[in-house]
Amino acid sequence: MTSVSIPSRPVDRLVQLKNHLSTMTQKQHKLCMIPGPVEFHEDVLEAMSTPATSHVDPNFIPVFGEVIEMTRKVVLSQAAQPIILSGSGTLGWDQMCNVIEEGDEVIVTNTGYFGDRFGECLETYGAHVTAIRVPVGHRVTVEKVKEAFESIKKPVKMITMTHVDTSTGVLGDVKGIAAYVRQHSPETLIVIDAVCAVASEELRFDEWDIDVVISATQKALGAPPGLSVVVASQRAIKVYENRKTPVRNYYSNWGKWLPIMAAYEARKPAYFATPAVQLIYAFHVSLSQILAYGIENRFAAHREASVQFRMALAHLGLKPVAVDETCAANGMTAVWYPEGVDAKLVAQMAGQGVQIAGGLLQPHAPNYFRIGHMGLSVCDPNRKHIKKVIDVLTASLSQLGYKA
Amino acid sequence: MTSVSIPSRPVDRLVQLKNHLSTMTQKQHKLCMIPGPVEFHEDVLEAMSTPATSHVDPNFIPVFGEVIEMTRKVVLSQAAQPIILSGSGTLGWDQMCNVIEEGDEVIVTNTGYFGDRFGECLETYGAHVTAIRVPVGHRVTVEKVKEAFESIKKPVKMITMTHVDTSTGVLGDVKGIAAYVRQHSPETLIVIDAVCAVASEELRFDEWDIDVVISATQKALGAPPGLSVVVASQRAIKVYENRKTPVRNYYSNWGKWLPIMAAYEARKPAYFATPAVQLIYAFHVSLSQILAYGIENRFAAHREASVQFRMALAHLGLKPVAVDETCAANGMTAVWYPEGVDAKLVAQMAGQGVQIAGGLLQPHAPNYFRIGHMGLSVCDPNRKHIKKVIDVLTASLSQLGYKA
Repeated sequence: MTSVSIPSRPVDRLVQLKNHLSTMTQKQHKLCMIPGPVEFHEDVLEAMSTPATSHVDPNFIPVFGEVIEMTRKVVLSQAAQPIILSGSGTLGWDQMCNVIEEGDEVIVTNTGYFGDRFGECLETYGAHVTAIRVPVGHRVTVEKVKEAFESIKKPVKMITMTHVDTSTGVLGDVKGIAAYVRQHSPETLIVIDAVCAVASEELRFDEWDIDVVISATQKALGAPPGLSVVVASQRAIKVYENRKTPVRNYYSNWGKWLPIMAAYEARKPAYFATPAVQLIYAFHVSLSQILAYGIENRFAAHREASVQFRMALAHLGLKPVAVDETCAANGMTAVWYPEGVDAKLVAQMAGQGVQIAGGLLQPHAPNYFRIGHMGLSVCDPNRKHIKKVIDVLTASLSQLGYKA
Repeated sequence: MTSVSIPSRPVDRLVQLKNHLSTMTQKQHKLCMIPGPVEFHEDVLEAMSTPATSHVDPNFIPVFGEVIEMTRKVVLSQAAQPIILSGSGTLGWDQMCNVIEEGDEVIVTNTGYFGDRFGECLETYGAHVTAIRVPVGHRVTVEKVKEAFESIKKPVKMITMTHVDTSTGVLGDVKGIAAYVRQHSPETLIVIDAVCAVASEELRFDEWDIDVVISATQKALGAPPGLSVVVASQRAIKVYENRKTPVRNYYSNWGKWLPIMAAYEARKPAYFATPAVQLIYAFHVSLSQILAYGIENRFAAHREASVQFRMALAHLGLKPVAVDETCAANGMTAVWYPEGVDAKLVAQMAGQGVQIAGGLLQPHAPNYFRIGHMGLSVCDPNRKHIKKVIDVLTASLSQLGYKA
């Protein structure tokens, strides 16, 4: 045997590193009230530190299988296909490469930053995008969608909606537009970017006859960021299966992933790429909590919290970006800074232990802020997160010289 | 305010769920000695449960910035560009879409399953792939690479090597082939799939003049799965910048990510897609541990562990898949089942608390097993992981009727 000089574990240095990291993180934890990542339940965080487990371990396979089944239940579907990958929410847009072919007509209903980006993603995969734009704070109406369909002389392959645009807090009319599209153009795929909506906004996959829901774990789904969560209808999967040209993407290719999802759901081992085992465990906990609470109760709780939140804003004389209640998200609110207040508000609140987010949609970004009210912060009122964010907002505005 | 009926937190049901999950996981934890995910340090797991933190929180930005800097150090580079994304190791292959254009000639040196798949990925993005295949257990020689270059009458855009093919445990001759390629065809990009090699196998990015290293967190890098870790040379980035056709991929597009990596390294907020915050914290801990231990010490420790492991195999009369020591990985070993023993060995060892992996490369998969010996299990000998896996292997073989 060769003999080499290997130092023993450098304990002192590691302790020092650990203290360094603690200073950077846990000790300075602020209540995270941005529109995702949201605050996570202790049990979810505990599952994040599950020891190393093989991705084909007989203990892990049923956990992933149950995650697939519970995801289907959360979007209120019986037979749609969840596809849960290691990646961010953005990777869900990418997966539309499976149903888009060169020259396909797509209507993108656009209510902010995320509509712009989704359209750009679809163009990468060959789509010809017709964007429906509305003034900031407004939603896209069925009437506008009708006009778009009439203006396009070819079959429309897909229409996309941002259920809640995280950049503006505008709630799309998914139910109304889906009903129109299904009647007017039954073959058009109805694709919902619901990253900031699943498990907080009313969304009925089967009843509304949706084709794809795109989400991610770190918002109302209540687990840390790192999983792309897509649910596809059998109609969407048929479109993928009948495509004429190869999928222009490797990692997002459903041909690779559908057999893997089927295998885990059948409680059998399978491998294409290593799943994020610990995140799957954490997601299992949060999905279990969501289903134990009840989906209809989730919708109701978020509706109530958003009413409470907007009442507090009105009391402070603040104006949401969403122009009226019908187009206001229930899981987050974007708010215009009042006269004399600017992005200093975010730092002011952070200094008092509450993290909110600045604006995101240019050129308006410097003029508004965003607060998340979803998931744990809404469903466990004992934690008083909503009260705290309102109290700190009130105090911070006052400290910055604003008078309601 | 609307009044809705929301149940209080259903505590009993949640406790029940938690016990259910514990039964499925922690209580049945087996020592994870597959070739990744590997066993994780307690401090790494603790960082996984960092509470919710904004991806642009002033506390998080320097953590991500340091992760980028430490990743560069781990591959022994001064100026290469790390790109750390939410995704699996496979997503690193996908990122080659940034430098490949339709019709580009690529040589894929193939020593197992992962070479096949990498080639398939590159073809998706338009590459014309020339695969160099060798019998199972053998490495690709410089001579074979020379022949491939001679057979291709056009400039070769890229050559790929699997540093350690996780399916066979064969260690590629990265140093030798890179030296030949750089001299013979200086513009050819040298791309190393080092998912199962970074921080366990000798790899010198700058000294060997490598262009891309592709890795992932769950092997010798010592953090749970869920991050794609790519390091690109300035030469590779120039090739991306000077490409003539658009990148055929949205999520993996370096145009989106390079500004984000630059921002985090400059300790400034930036956003394209939400990073996997908790995984970044965990990766920070494992990178800190790796650098504290020392890269050269890591190489030496893995060399020593592999010698020890192969000696134990020889003692048992078992034969590694890698045909000789020069092509045997230091972080894992694939081993032929001896006469009379088959895949039952994996279950037999699992029953005694040690998880190993079966074969992966068809048609040989039913005829061999794989054991990981990397990261924590090698660098902290006090844990006696290597001794345990050898002891349980010995006992299990005996229980299955095998006599050395």
